[in-house]
Amino acid sequence: MTTTPVETVTTGPIEGSVKHYQEVDGLRIPVRRINMTNGEHFDVYDTSGPYTDDTATIDVETGLPKLRADWGRPEVAGPPTQLAWARQGIITPEMRFIAAREGVAPELVRDEVAIGRAVIPANHNHPELEPTIIGKKFLVKINANIGNSAVSSSIAEEVEKMVWATRWGADTIMDLSTGKNIHETREWIMRNSPVPVGTVPIYQALEKVNGDPTALTWEIYRDTVIEQCEQGVDYMTVHAGVLLRYVPLTAKRVTGIVSRGGSIMAAWCLAHHQESFLYTNFAELCEILAKYDVTFSLGDGLRPGSIADANDEAQFAELRTLGELTKIAKSHGVQVMIEGPGHVPMHKIVENVRLEEELCEEAPFYTLGPLATDIAPAYDHITSAIGAAIIAQAGTAMLCYVTPKEHLGLPNRDDVKVGVITYKIAAHAADLAKAHPHAQDRDNELSKARFEFRWHDQFALALDPDTAREYHDETLPAEPAKSAHFCSMCGPKFCSMRISADVRDFAQQNGLETQEDIDRMIAAGMAEKSAEFADAGNKVYLPIVS
Amino acid sequence: MTTTPVETVTTGPIEGSVKHYQEVDGLRIPVRRINMTNGEHFDVYDTSGPYTDDTATIDVETGLPKLRADWGRPEVAGPPTQLAWARQGIITPEMRFIAAREGVAPELVRDEVAIGRAVIPANHNHPELEPTIIGKKFLVKINANIGNSAVSSSIAEEVEKMVWATRWGADTIMDLSTGKNIHETREWIMRNSPVPVGTVPIYQALEKVNGDPTALTWEIYRDTVIEQCEQGVDYMTVHAGVLLRYVPLTAKRVTGIVSRGGSIMAAWCLAHHQESFLYTNFAELCEILAKYDVTFSLGDGLRPGSIADANDEAQFAELRTLGELTKIAKSHGVQVMIEGPGHVPMHKIVENVRLEEELCEEAPFYTLGPLATDIAPAYDHITSAIGAAIIAQAGTAMLCYVTPKEHLGLPNRDDVKVGVITYKIAAHAADLAKAHPHAQDRDNELSKARFEFRWHDQFALALDPDTAREYHDETLPAEPAKSAHFCSMCGPKFCSMRISADVRDFAQQNGLETQEDIDRMIAAGMAEKSAEFADAGNKVYLPIVS
Repeated sequence: MTTTPVETVTTGPIEGSVKHYQEVDGLRIPVRRINMTNGEHFDVYDTSGPYTDDTATIDVETGLPKLRADWGRPEVAGPPTQLAWARQGIITPEMRFIAAREGVAPELVRDEVAIGRAVIPANHNHPELEPTIIGKKFLVKINANIGNSAVSSSIAEEVEKMVWATRWGADTIMDLSTGKNIHETREWIMRNSPVPVGTVPIYQALEKVNGDPTALTWEIYRDTVIEQCEQGVDYMTVHAGVLLRYVPLTAKRVTGIVSRGGSIMAAWCLAHHQESFLYTNFAELCEILAKYDVTFSLGDGLRPGSIADANDEAQFAELRTLGELTKIAKSHGVQVMIEGPGHVPMHKIVENVRLEEELCEEAPFYTLGPLATDIAPAYDHITSAIGAAIIAQAGTAMLCYVTPKEHLGLPNRDDVKVGVITYKIAAHAADLAKAHPHAQDRDNELSKARFEFRWHDQFALALDPDTAREYHDETLPAEPAKSAHFCSMCGPKFCSMRISADVRDFAQQNGLETQEDIDRMIAAGMAEKSAEFADAGNKVYLPIVS
Repeated sequence: MTTTPVETVTTGPIEGSVKHYQEVDGLRIPVRRINMTNGEHFDVYDTSGPYTDDTATIDVETGLPKLRADWGRPEVAGPPTQLAWARQGIITPEMRFIAAREGVAPELVRDEVAIGRAVIPANHNHPELEPTIIGKKFLVKINANIGNSAVSSSIAEEVEKMVWATRWGADTIMDLSTGKNIHETREWIMRNSPVPVGTVPIYQALEKVNGDPTALTWEIYRDTVIEQCEQGVDYMTVHAGVLLRYVPLTAKRVTGIVSRGGSIMAAWCLAHHQESFLYTNFAELCEILAKYDVTFSLGDGLRPGSIADANDEAQFAELRTLGELTKIAKSHGVQVMIEGPGHVPMHKIVENVRLEEELCEEAPFYTLGPLATDIAPAYDHITSAIGAAIIAQAGTAMLCYVTPKEHLGLPNRDDVKVGVITYKIAAHAADLAKAHPHAQDRDNELSKARFEFRWHDQFALALDPDTAREYHDETLPAEPAKSAHFCSMCGPKFCSMRISADVRDFAQQNGLETQEDIDRMIAAGMAEKSAEFADAGNKVYLPIVS
């Protein structure tokens, strides 16, 4: 690593929690442990790596400890990939780690990887990685894009963005740098990233030809891929489905081609009037990726960039080609996921998943939103969270976040956080809708804390404890308000939670446990019980904080 | 009106637009006209009233002009309500105004009101109102709650919140004040509101008995309702479906009763061991509301307050009773809508709409979100926008907004704006998904502006032009960047929109208009055309701003 200074990264636990490791079968599984004021604790899936561990020494110059360095690799014939091993019935340490993390059986992990319905992006050269799985039978994952552009940002900022994004829950990050120092920026990110890192190699290849897409060659591209494989990149977006004959299909679109990689390849194909070199050299590319166990993320270079262009012929023609390429990649033992849109109105979202599953053998779908409307620039984290939640419910395995700056500029640190939290919401909403085992536990814990006016616990269980506390404190900053039986929204007299806690106490004190008890009470018309409640009711309104 | 000072309200048009009136059949229909830099204009549905009209004189002491004062009322037998008139085949000025606003036939408005599938909340005593319709065949509407609580806020702030909320697109507002000066606050709001105003009369009734729900009586409640009818309130939430026998059904819930009105009535029923006075006096209530043409919003006092409690027996028992009450209200000629949840995971949302439609004769459904997860306090505008978009797609007619402060405190002016914009997104996403005529026009206009790098037009067409511009200007503040063919997200070399505009130009210059043209080009392998594009491609990367 060079001496480019990374001034500082964010360390220390998220408020209300500590880093904890569950010892499972010789592996240490990181969790965020929330110690609640009622003496209980609640453990949360944790993507943040050692940065939130108060006992860890963080030195970005050295990089993270090489967790997987001594995990070994199965010594069997065939490509050295999780896919090949899974097919041979082998459960790798990565699979065991993931099974413990997700709370599922290791066999489920192996089976899903073996049939290609899940991927474990884990380059041999990224030993710092805490492995994660992307597949529809598992928790929905989210990706955060970082990376500088020619106009903005520095290496230090990008490393901090990676730490910051994983702190708030990004399961993978993509380094989309397009400006200067691409290689060096990536090196810093790789050595310090506890999550899988994805890239789009064509961006760096384009820099090598001074930004002229028509000057690209297979050789330049191939060498760039090898360079990135060597560094440890875990998955790569390859727009090999943008074929020459599809390009004119975009001419009548409202927003043409909106994928950077897609537009670069379209320009190359048109200029040379040749088929894409990514397509014609795909088998060789597979051999390279297999060697390192780098996962394909087959890019949707012709994804729709507006509601008007959703689900059109260009988009689905490319998807059919991605299906073809999926089979080729898997025949080389390379893991594959498929990228998806984009901008899609709600009623056209599910069709995308069904078609992807049909054409691409249920390879994990990885979508960008989609945005459910075009009319809200500055709020596209929200327009896209709507689409993302719906597409994840339908089976999408990973969601690429969108920040408030989408379409307008490069996201800063705050934007990254808002994007990540928003996408954790979409992913979790889908986990609930898919009835993922235990997904609802956190909702239940938080709602119980809310009902019992344990404000500190409510904040700690939230996706973003800092902002929840800050909003509460705007009107009621004093510490006693943290156990007060109301907030400033309704004030003390009108707190429904408080009144309804009294209703529950009344029911419990009177043995109203079953429907029969309730019927009995109704039938009996217990006047004296009512009087008791009226007494309790008077008590309700005594000010607790005054 | 008293002399309580309302210091200032926000006036003047939204950036990039002017107030315009379409003259239709003797009525002046307000629109927000966006004059674009390409010489065209685009008109947007406008809820903001005279405040955004540069030529209007705004004096909150006097109140708004009484637009409907000389519209007259049909002189026919029966209750003087839009429902009764519609049933008699009469198209009122309110219906004509709405038809022009929505771009539909007046007959559709009348028919939908006549069968009770749409409502026009328009109290005779609110002549300042620009009428709006709430029903699933029309644009999805949104409501913004305002109102002070005992802990926070002043009258001046609440009037400004109303002006502010309607500026950004609130179709109705609810005044939920619970603190001091409830009557006076409401008077200021009524006289200055261009949109329907809703209330929950039980809040004021409770203040009259010093906050003790067990001290409430039918007489106090009735007099409060009359007082509010006289002031011009357009619709009222009445929790008449919280029956004594349902209250114990909530005892086992994770979050009990979370509706303020619901918890008040539950406490009253338990304390007196009597059936709710709202239920037993419902017919008399109908007669009062009919006189003023106030619309019922039958409250869901037992709505779920957590994912765990969604779609439970308590919730649906109450909904069945609301169905009963709907029939009674309509038999009195009173318009009715039905309130809905709350907190519901995505897979349980649609059932709410189907059941409501079945039980309540398709009376317009008016839901609070629902929140699709409990785990994100401080982001519940987003958790609920996901649920809101889905429930609106399924047929919900109006969405009650949720702000980032939900569960944490009273929203301020910024929170109100974020809540409104977020809900405009959810409502519009649903309009698209329901294929509402012309809903996609705005998406198409904005996307065209985006593709053509008309940044000013893109901002002006956005739901929130100010924030879109601000985000853009953070990295590229200079005026030339407003016509630059890139933004700081990707920088000049990597702008896919720019490359793809070249692809389109190439296709057009080469007569690639139809699929046959495209096939011909593929077949021909036009080398010279490719060379042309390569030339064009070189041009692409000339810096426009340097």
